[in-house]
Amino acid sequence: MSGKPKLRIGLIGTGFMGTAHVFGFACAPKIFELPMEIELHAVADVTEAGATRAASRYGFLKATGQWRHLIEDPDIDVIDITAPNALHREMALAAIAAGKHVYCEKPLAPSAADAREMAEAAEAGGVKTQVGFNYLCNPMIGLAHDMIQAGELGDIRGYRGLHCEDYMADAATQFTFRHDPRGGGALADIGSHALATAERLLGPIVEVMGDCVTAIPERSDGQGAMRRIEVDDVARAFLRFANGATGSIEANWIATGRKMQHDFEVYGTRGALAFSQEHFNELHYYSCSDKPGRRGFRRIEASPDHPPYGEFCVAAGHQLGFNDLKAVEVAGFVHAIAGAAEPFAFRAGLRVQTLVDTVRRSSVERRWLDLPA
Amino acid sequence: MSGKPKLRIGLIGTGFMGTAHVFGFACAPKIFELPMEIELHAVADVTEAGATRAASRYGFLKATGQWRHLIEDPDIDVIDITAPNALHREMALAAIAAGKHVYCEKPLAPSAADAREMAEAAEAGGVKTQVGFNYLCNPMIGLAHDMIQAGELGDIRGYRGLHCEDYMADAATQFTFRHDPRGGGALADIGSHALATAERLLGPIVEVMGDCVTAIPERSDGQGAMRRIEVDDVARAFLRFANGATGSIEANWIATGRKMQHDFEVYGTRGALAFSQEHFNELHYYSCSDKPGRRGFRRIEASPDHPPYGEFCVAAGHQLGFNDLKAVEVAGFVHAIAGAAEPFAFRAGLRVQTLVDTVRRSSVERRWLDLPA
Amino acid sequence: MSGKPKLRIGLIGTGFMGTAHVFGFACAPKIFELPMEIELHAVADVTEAGATRAASRYGFLKATGQWRHLIEDPDIDVIDITAPNALHREMALAAIAAGKHVYCEKPLAPSAADAREMAEAAEAGGVKTQVGFNYLCNPMIGLAHDMIQAGELGDIRGYRGLHCEDYMADAATQFTFRHDPRGGGALADIGSHALATAERLLGPIVEVMGDCVTAIPERSDGQGAMRRIEVDDVARAFLRFANGATGSIEANWIATGRKMQHDFEVYGTRGALAFSQEHFNELHYYSCSDKPGRRGFRRIEASPDHPPYGEFCVAAGHQLGFNDLKAVEVAGFVHAIAGAAEPFAFRAGLRVQTLVDTVRRSSVERRWLDLPA
Amino acid sequence: MSGKPKLRIGLIGTGFMGTAHVFGFACAPKIFELPMEIELHAVADVTEAGATRAASRYGFLKATGQWRHLIEDPDIDVIDITAPNALHREMALAAIAAGKHVYCEKPLAPSAADAREMAEAAEAGGVKTQVGFNYLCNPMIGLAHDMIQAGELGDIRGYRGLHCEDYMADAATQFTFRHDPRGGGALADIGSHALATAERLLGPIVEVMGDCVTAIPERSDGQGAMRRIEVDDVARAFLRFANGATGSIEANWIATGRKMQHDFEVYGTRGALAFSQEHFNELHYYSCSDKPGRRGFRRIEASPDHPPYGEFCVAAGHQLGFNDLKAVEVAGFVHAIAGAAEPFAFRAGLRVQTLVDTVRRSSVERRWLDLPA
Repeated sequence: MSGKPKLRIGLIGTGFMGTAHVFGFACAPKIFELPMEIELHAVADVTEAGATRAASRYGFLKATGQWRHLIEDPDIDVIDITAPNALHREMALAAIAAGKHVYCEKPLAPSAADAREMAEAAEAGGVKTQVGFNYLCNPMIGLAHDMIQAGELGDIRGYRGLHCEDYMADAATQFTFRHDPRGGGALADIGSHALATAERLLGPIVEVMGDCVTAIPERSDGQGAMRRIEVDDVARAFLRFANGATGSIEANWIATGRKMQHDFEVYGTRGALAFSQEHFNELHYYSCSDKPGRRGFRRIEASPDHPPYGEFCVAAGHQLGFNDLKAVEVAGFVHAIAGAAEPFAFRAGLRVQTLVDTVRRSSVERRWLDLPA
Repeated sequence: MSGKPKLRIGLIGTGFMGTAHVFGFACAPKIFELPMEIELHAVADVTEAGATRAASRYGFLKATGQWRHLIEDPDIDVIDITAPNALHREMALAAIAAGKHVYCEKPLAPSAADAREMAEAAEAGGVKTQVGFNYLCNPMIGLAHDMIQAGELGDIRGYRGLHCEDYMADAATQFTFRHDPRGGGALADIGSHALATAERLLGPIVEVMGDCVTAIPERSDGQGAMRRIEVDDVARAFLRFANGATGSIEANWIATGRKMQHDFEVYGTRGALAFSQEHFNELHYYSCSDKPGRRGFRRIEASPDHPPYGEFCVAAGHQLGFNDLKAVEVAGFVHAIAGAAEPFAFRAGLRVQTLVDTVRRSSVERRWLDLPA
Repeated sequence: MSGKPKLRIGLIGTGFMGTAHVFGFACAPKIFELPMEIELHAVADVTEAGATRAASRYGFLKATGQWRHLIEDPDIDVIDITAPNALHREMALAAIAAGKHVYCEKPLAPSAADAREMAEAAEAGGVKTQVGFNYLCNPMIGLAHDMIQAGELGDIRGYRGLHCEDYMADAATQFTFRHDPRGGGALADIGSHALATAERLLGPIVEVMGDCVTAIPERSDGQGAMRRIEVDDVARAFLRFANGATGSIEANWIATGRKMQHDFEVYGTRGALAFSQEHFNELHYYSCSDKPGRRGFRRIEASPDHPPYGEFCVAAGHQLGFNDLKAVEVAGFVHAIAGAAEPFAFRAGLRVQTLVDTVRRSSVERRWLDLPA
Repeated sequence: MSGKPKLRIGLIGTGFMGTAHVFGFACAPKIFELPMEIELHAVADVTEAGATRAASRYGFLKATGQWRHLIEDPDIDVIDITAPNALHREMALAAIAAGKHVYCEKPLAPSAADAREMAEAAEAGGVKTQVGFNYLCNPMIGLAHDMIQAGELGDIRGYRGLHCEDYMADAATQFTFRHDPRGGGALADIGSHALATAERLLGPIVEVMGDCVTAIPERSDGQGAMRRIEVDDVARAFLRFANGATGSIEANWIATGRKMQHDFEVYGTRGALAFSQEHFNELHYYSCSDKPGRRGFRRIEASPDHPPYGEFCVAAGHQLGFNDLKAVEVAGFVHAIAGAAEPFAFRAGLRVQTLVDTVRRSSVERRWLDLPA
């Protein structure tokens, strides 16, 4: 009986990300003092049975095998899309048309054109939106951002970003929606994180040279046939930033042995940062202001000095987990719906998709491309 | 409308651990398929205002400034004690007398005598109990345990455990309940973790030699006077295990710079393990079976191969957080109440307290002491 | 009184690398059983005084301010060139013409054209040559090479190499010969290491796309004027290998905080390797053959299992130092002069310079370039 | 033709340490500007054949199967003892009696009584002495020492030292001189390093409680019989320092997987240090003076700021190796013979041996023991 206005969620999809969203919805109100009360109202999955199971498991009031039912449901305030990328546009546009806020997993859409349509529709419709770039919710990314903004590193000259995992390294792994030429590939799937982090930290990228590689040319379709793979397994890009810095990223989902190498290094005139998602509760900081003979990368451990870590734990070094980042993300969206600025709206998701598309096109055309302003 | 029986919680205390328990209660039912439905029924704090704030913040139905109200409340199934150590005994005995299950933060009691009384009362009363040694809920501790049990390391010869932090390193930090001679000190507060982990992995300790040190002899009482400190800031112990292995632990809450150095190494005849809570989603494993020239400590990252990691995330390397360990702990207790074995009952808490007491007494008597069988 | 034939060295240059070579000549005969006796015969420096100081300090029999004296000296068998890159060609050609063996610091020459002239002259002249790519002498690079050759990683798909330091990060650092447009720049200076390592491990590179950046546009000439910088501070390249793998390298001498980030990762179908020159006595190895739940990067420490480590130390983990790699290099060259295969002759140095030139030209032309076969 | 006085070395022993000493003698004069010229004059080994091989290999002028020949040789200035511990006393006393300087591998002697006799004889005889605690020659240990002395860590409260390796972990490893009850065991062999480092950094230890364990009760004598092991495989000690700090060390030569875990942590009121010999070119430093939110252990890499690193390399981060530490040690001894203070004379070796003996006796007597002043 909180007396707070309810925020009724309609979730589409119950896979890896659907589940992570449920965890975020469950934990966020305990961790954070939110202005609204979250209600897990309804869940849709490809089959009604799957949806019903999820509803029972997670406490949704309703379940359906048809996502359009959520759109049509007047008791739903937020449509939360965790379905495959290729479906994002249709679902989001329908939700926006129905006047609902939309929370959509990344990448926002298979193409920048789709993403633009979605962002413009949302803005025209006056609904709040969010794209799930959860790694940006990490307090240590916030710290890195703030240090750069405050000039603690001086002028930024160089950047190197990675997002390498090995979940597609086995050639026997079957074709999935992540291999769908409409929006799939390592660049879209995890390179989008690398690009989003790069811009969050250094600001706009103005030029790219891409190199997208398909290393495993075909995969089983699960029904006895092989299917040709058109998307990239590895994507690299050289980057030029508006602030004058240069850099690079690599996205790689066949990086044998790597489970979460979403890393970066930033080099400035007065200091440097190094980060790895493998130890994402730490940020390594080198300061040229330390006296000679005492310089070195400092391993800063996440603590209440690094908001919103303190909401999770009053003691330093105890560490957040992957799902906690989703709770931060959910909290940000609830605040946005209640009137705050959107932390990562569709417009921001469009930007990432534009980067993805441009890197991909650059690779095809084998030449540097400017980014649309 | 889950149809599951309700499990109504009465929480005492709303500090660091009280909050962590709330997070556990909130998340556990989403992460795990639990046999009962958790209800945050009532919360007690030192002041009614504090309790009311917590109730409103976390969604408890009732609030009170008197913990005995929870004991008397017939609508409460579980008393969850996160009050200072010196109060655990009285609260737990009252709860047990009222026929309630009891979930109690560690350490279980200021002394083994108290802990024994509590354990025996609980067993006599037929209620389920749990002590909050959450670090034991880590999938990687489970992995270490299972590997040792399976003989993957051969015969175990050596052990070295730590739990070092720096939250009391500043001499200006005031006297708190953690300095209370009735149950306080680094050995009780975090050495208990080091000892619990040692026995979880290697089995019973049969002899100890302790070394407890008070490094900061007095602290401000917060009201202008200094208070002499009787408890240890650092506690070390040599250990003898029933399996023939020897080892040591160190508990240290003035370990400047250390935030979560709850570490161990285990040396066996065929392999070794190294672990640090600073990176608690990893376990380092050295196998003598690897071929010469290819041997080395392997950094195993937590993955769905290490239950219950997979409940949190289907992908390896994404990492659990501190609060997630509480969710595992809560889930274990709910299962225990529904009929499963108790993961860490008062009897187990008594064992740890016996170890703590014996190390402390050994230090005072400056001699080796046998552990009661 | 060894009875071995003498190998009389004439060293040109007494700076960082000149000194490192002296250390190598001094230590190699103690560490290794060499077929010849090394004699530090003569040293040349820019000034006679400098040469005399070095001769006295290091035990050369003769000193001169004119490097041509060494060429003309019939008592010298090997000309060892550690002068600035722009001088390598002239010195080496003179030495070859005089029938002397030539040991030359990397990079071999300012351009592939020069390097080719040098390599062809050496081969025509029948003298033995060596280029100082000392990092390749590391036993752990040897291990990585052997593992890849033996198929322990399966088919190689991906590579990522770095050589990042910060010795030019301070814009106040003056113009030196390393900034000389004839052969200077980060790509030539340290990118050459990154490229040499890449080919040593994966074999020939067949196509590159370069990105060379001058971040600090001018530097003091040390005499009150500023001098425009034409060479690169950062160089990146995408790579295609003949074996089908793709990869990248980055060379960066303004990487604030980095002292020796000469790192790489290799991803294969059955395993992976990760290496950092920051801890160059280790190689991290991930094997897909480890059983599920026990996989992870193993930190293999250098040991007598990894030749020639055992020549330095009979016990594992004791570690080689930077100068030790020079001793390995020297030993290799002495063996070559005595008849063994040349470990890294001018022909190999030419290859690296061809890679450097092609990356640089690719950057200027902003397009992918094939490598000459 | 250096014109410097010659320092003629007579080396006893050609094993692991004998070879390391040769490397030190060879490299030191190149690395350092020494006041004397080192001559490898004669070498003795158990057999004349072995000595002759070593002489030929390393360039000694003479070889002998009888170490007393070196004592009697008037052309020898320094007797360098790398024979088994049990022989140190006799050899050193003979050398001192012959008026020769003595360089002796650690541990100095099987017992403090022997060591005292040796130290007193050397002092009475007026010869210079040195014990080979080479790890103390590490620039990073020097840095740690200097930081502590300068008060950069504030008052020191805690210490934790290790020296763990696994070279005796295999129960099939035969009995060697290192198992000899006269001076063998892990405590003497490597615990001596841990104790020497502890006192170098924190000053005198005034009280110890030891715990020595024989884990492998017998080993093959190599001739078909088993021999009972009397020495320790693992030794632990609690420590009290004169400065008020408390601490512990562990020596362990059956620490499976560990090759060079000679580590320590120092906790002060204003900062902390952490070091591992596994990466001995680094020192990790935590400063309480860093501003909140920016604190963390800094990885300081060895550089010319840390003498004598700069003698080896002008560039930071290039790293010394194990043998380089011997070169530093040799240089220190040559300077001592030429008149400088002795870096680690027999008196210092006696101190370490006294610590070793006291820890061992404490373990036998199972009680705390004071250290002789």
